[in-house]
Formats: sequence, C-alpha cells, structure tokens
Amino acid sequence: MLTQAAVPLGFEVTVLDPAERGPAVQAGANLIRGGLTEPEAISRLVESTDVTTWEIEHIDTETLAYLEATGRDIQPHAHTLRIIQDKLHQKLFLKSWEVPVAPHIALHQYSDYEKAFDLFDGDVIIKTRRGGYDGRGNLAPEAEGSIQAFRRATEAFGDRPLYAEQIIPFKKELAVMVARDKLGELASYPVVETVHRDNICHMVLAPAPVSLETRNRAEEVARQAIAQFNGAGIFGVELFLTADDEVLVNEIAPRVHNSGHHTIEANHTSQFEQHIRAVTGLPLGSTEMVTPAAVMVNILGDRNGDYDLRGLNDVLELPDTHVHLYGKRPTAKARKMGHITVRAGDLDEAKERALFARSLLSV
Amino acid sequence: MLTQAAVPLGFEVTVLDPAERGPAVQAGANLIRGGLTEPEAISRLVESTDVTTWEIEHIDTETLAYLEATGRDIQPHAHTLRIIQDKLHQKLFLKSWEVPVAPHIALHQYSDYEKAFDLFDGDVIIKTRRGGYDGRGNLAPEAEGSIQAFRRATEAFGDRPLYAEQIIPFKKELAVMVARDKLGELASYPVVETVHRDNICHMVLAPAPVSLETRNRAEEVARQAIAQFNGAGIFGVELFLTADDEVLVNEIAPRVHNSGHHTIEANHTSQFEQHIRAVTGLPLGSTEMVTPAAVMVNILGDRNGDYDLRGLNDVLELPDTHVHLYGKRPTAKARKMGHITVRAGDLDEAKERALFARSLLSV
Repeated sequence: MLTQAAVPLGFEVTVLDPAERGPAVQAGANLIRGGLTEPEAISRLVESTDVTTWEIEHIDTETLAYLEATGRDIQPHAHTLRIIQDKLHQKLFLKSWEVPVAPHIALHQYSDYEKAFDLFDGDVIIKTRRGGYDGRGNLAPEAEGSIQAFRRATEAFGDRPLYAEQIIPFKKELAVMVARDKLGELASYPVVETVHRDNICHMVLAPAPVSLETRNRAEEVARQAIAQFNGAGIFGVELFLTADDEVLVNEIAPRVHNSGHHTIEANHTSQFEQHIRAVTGLPLGSTEMVTPAAVMVNILGDRNGDYDLRGLNDVLELPDTHVHLYGKRPTAKARKMGHITVRAGDLDEAKERALFARSLLSV
Repeated sequence: MLTQAAVPLGFEVTVLDPAERGPAVQAGANLIRGGLTEPEAISRLVESTDVTTWEIEHIDTETLAYLEATGRDIQPHAHTLRIIQDKLHQKLFLKSWEVPVAPHIALHQYSDYEKAFDLFDGDVIIKTRRGGYDGRGNLAPEAEGSIQAFRRATEAFGDRPLYAEQIIPFKKELAVMVARDKLGELASYPVVETVHRDNICHMVLAPAPVSLETRNRAEEVARQAIAQFNGAGIFGVELFLTADDEVLVNEIAPRVHNSGHHTIEANHTSQFEQHIRAVTGLPLGSTEMVTPAAVMVNILGDRNGDYDLRGLNDVLELPDTHVHLYGKRPTAKARKMGHITVRAGDLDEAKERALFARSLLSV
C-alpha cells in the first residue's frame, strides 16, 4: 500500500523482502531479496535509494544507525526505531517526557517479580521487551494463582529480557495516527476505536465513538508522544481509555499501522501517502475525513493452507465497500491477508455493513 | 491506473507495451514487450491471461477477433472494438439504434464532398474514419472558403478513408461513463462536463453544471448507446449539448476514459476498478459520488524534453488535492503526463482550486 501511494507521486520504490513476489513487488516495487536483519541486504537497499523507511519494526537497527552515521537518509531516524523496539525503553522514554503510560517495571531478578506483584496488587502482565506483536510475547497471570507459578510460566520466554506492566482496566482501545515531517511539524488523524480479538486488530471505527473531550485528550497525548521522536514518517499511537476516562499510551508503532488502513478511502490523505510525503520531504496533507463514518475490518486467514478466496463476488455487490487483498501466499491462521473498508452516513451503519461484508468472505 | 485497481482485488496483470518500463509495469504488471498491432505479441498476451482487455483502441482487431473465435475471453468483444474503430461505422451503428448523432456522410468521391457541403450548408468537418484522437485526423474548413480549397486540404490525409459530419454548435461538451457487465447490465456514472483546449481534454467538472432534465437525458442517451454493444467493460460516451438543449453522441471510447479519472477519489467505485470488475465477471459497483463536487485537470507536457517535474511541493500543500503522475518519459508537448483531482463542497470552489493547483506545476 506504500508502493501504491508512492507511484502516482512519481517515486520509484525498491523493497527489501525475503519473498520473491511479495505485496510491494506486486504493486511495482523493485526487489532486493534478503532478510530484514541481514546487514548486507539492508546496506544494499539503503545504498540504492535516496531515502529509506520501513513498514515493520523488527529490523536490524545497528546497520541502519551505521548507514545513517555515514550520511544516508533514514526516516524516521534509526535512533527512534531503537527506542521503540525495546518496549521498556519506549515506556521509560515516554514517561520521561510526561506522556501518560501504564505503570511498569523492569524484570531482572526474582525480587523484581515480587515487587511487581506487590506494586500492582497482582494485576500484572509480563511482556518481552523486544520482538512481540499481536499479543505474542505477552503473558498475563490469569488463573495461575501464585507468583511462583507465574514465574515458572515466564520460563517459556527463555532468557529474553522481560518487563512487567500493571493491567489497566480499559473501556476502549483507541488509536491516533500522527505524521511528522522533516521539520518536526505534526499532522494527526481523527481518533479511532480499535477492536481486538485474540490480541489481533479485528476492526477499526472512525471516528471513535467517544466524547469530544476524550477525542481531544487522545489527540493531545498522541501528539505529545510523537513530538519527542526524531525523524519523519507516520506513527501509530495505540491508546487505552481507562475506566475513569484517562488516556494512556499503550504502544507506539513507528510506521503505517493497521488502525490507519481506512484512511485510503475515508480521509483526504491516506496514511500511506502521508508517510511517503513525510519521508521524502513533501508537505503533509490534510487529515480530514471525507465521509461521516468508516469502518475497517481485517481479513485474517481462517486456516492454514493454499490461498483460496471465496465470496469476493458477494462482497462487491455491496455499496461503497472497498476490498484490499495483499497478495500474500499461502493462507495462514490469523495471517493478515487483506482488509475491507466501508464508508457510510453513520458509524452503526458502517459497522454493520463492514461486518456483514467480512462474513461473506473466506480466505 | 487499471493495474493499481486490479492488484488489491487479487488479480495479476500482464501488459503488452512497446516500452520497457511503462506506467502499467511501474504499477506492478508483468510485461510482454511488443507493439499493439503485432499479431504475434497480441497472441502471446491473450494466451498468457484469463481475460484480455485494452485501454487504447488503436490495436489490431483482426488478431483479437481470431483469438476470440478460438475461445479466448476478450472484453469488450473484438466486434465492438471493430465497430468503434471506424468512426463512420460507429455513427451508422448508433444511428441504426436510434441513438442521436450529428448528421454525417461517407466521403468516397468528389461528388460526396459537394453533397456534404450542400447538405450541411458549409458547416462541415472532415474526419479520418480511423486512428484519429485528440482532434488529430479532423479538418474543419474554417477560413478555407471554397469546397475546392477544402478538398485540396484533405489531401494531407492521403488515401485514408474519410467522412464528413455537420458541425453542430454546442453549448457544452458532456460525457457519461457507462459500465456494462457480462450479462449486459449497465451502471452509469453521473454526467460530467468536459472542457477541451486545442481538442485535448483539459478539465472535467463532476457533476456537470446542467439542469436535471439535461442530466437525465444525457444519461439516457449514453445508456441507450452502450446497451447496443457486446462484451463487458467501461465505455466513455462523449456528448454534445446543442444550442437548443439536444443531447447528441459525439464519440464513444470502449475503455477507461479521461472523463472518468476523477472517479478515483470522487465516486464509490473508480472507473478503473469498475472496468476490472466488469471484464472479470465481478459485480459492478456503486457509481455514486462521495463528494458534492470534483474537478479533474490534466497535466499536459508544456514542452518537449527531459522529464523535469516542478511545483509538486506547492500542490501538495493544498487540501484534498490528488496528484497522479503516470511515469511517462520523456515530456512532450501536450502529452498527458498526469492529472490532478480536487474534491470540494461545490463546483466553483473545486474548479478554482484545481486550476490553481495545475498552475503551480510544470512537467
């Protein structure tokens, strides 16, 4: 989707991808075949382009930082990615800038577990500091009962660095996409509600059905967070709206994000075009919505096996319903294979129609 | 733009193009390199794909018709293209179905010229029957004065078949995009006004600023015309609104058309997605507008020479302004290098903003 946004603006795209014909290549990108943690492959990419960016954060920042130091244009900056990759550092960094986050502590030794349990009164979730996504790398005590059982359960993570966070009961999960240009100017999108299932983004409601006060607060917190990072690009700021209407930052994604896919049809400037504008030094575009309401539903693989799309015909009968298939192969359970966006006059209608459309498809 | 619409619906595109890295390849299409009138190249394209269509009508229909007869899926049908390629046949065909067109006669011998001059009272335009576009292949008498001078002037066309048409004074040029699915069902887009400069489309206003009665009549005439052709796809129907508010068909393009480019941002379903849906047997999408008004302005090359885009920065400062560059090289005078679409609350504002945006760019 980034390539699709870059081409009409006159850019040539080159992608680093371990696959031979991944989504970006299908959309016209040149390919450098290689892994996202292979220094040699990353160097080849950076050296063959004017500006380098990413759409996944699990990449080798050491190489990026080195190339940046030699004068290459990396956006956002490698340092930003490095802070964000370590979720504990991310939290500490945000806290140091007075951005509200859930209480958390590092876990080094057994006594830290005891401290976390005490401090958070047992309402604690253990997370890997690096590499987790879509809930992978998180462990909540649930029915475990005792701190000892819990400590044993975390052994599954081996010697990966962990931290503990207080579980904050929340009413809703919200998200704000914030773009940052090369001069540090910000442009934020209207706040959305994200609905997760099994820790994976299932649906996005735009704009979020919350009070004006909450909208303003969410936008303020998100902008406050992104203002502290270096480099240009779009950022997804995941937020909790707590039981007592506080807004906390859950996590930041330094890239285009699932909670911004609806902007392709729903906003003046899509998150993808916005990111391309930001990293290439073009001005940021208007983030206004072009429709009263839009709902995005992910198309997750419902099984493992050969790609076999069914129901597209039925979905395309529906008005103002937009299907985006990513061209990923094969299908895998919970793999993000595409998404559907519906525009409508109000959120209830958009939601109903989007869920109905999704129910007609299988991949 | 067709490739960009096909990829998110899960299709793989292969294009026949004499250029090595033309617009479709830049958007992810596989390439078969060859000319559009080379039977061997056309055969290779058709045989490597499930369905074949075109976005320019100056191609070899004999080969297409042959391949169709051997059971290949060509949309719209080769026969449709053959009728439309010969503008005189197109007119006769439309007339036979009682679609209103300007009076016309074939030109075979000198007496036909006399007949045309008499019949149309000197208000006559001579056109090549094949291969003309953007006004090329048209010759109006203007200051020529006499039929003899006029006859001599047409000698520039050599022995190409010609026909004469009465010049109809018109108030506006209108256009309607009409899609046709494989069962012959039609879906038409809101009527637009097209503004030409030097016979080349300069600007499209959507919806056309005309009375409801004219809108209805234009839609009716356009649907009546397209109902008679065979095969699926989108068609551009160019219309004249005469001084006495009659609607006449000027010309039909059996393909995506410049008067439908605004639909990418302005309508539920873009003309490009609509065409892909039609030719692949998917249901047609809603043609409703998503904005009160939209104006598209072409970016024509203003000189011959190396591609050198200027002003993109300034254009992208403007709200809800969408730039599409086609990746054509080099720049040539009057070559269609891209377009800009602006959405707005009303047509006057959209027009003003689109023309202003265009004035900032040079290619």
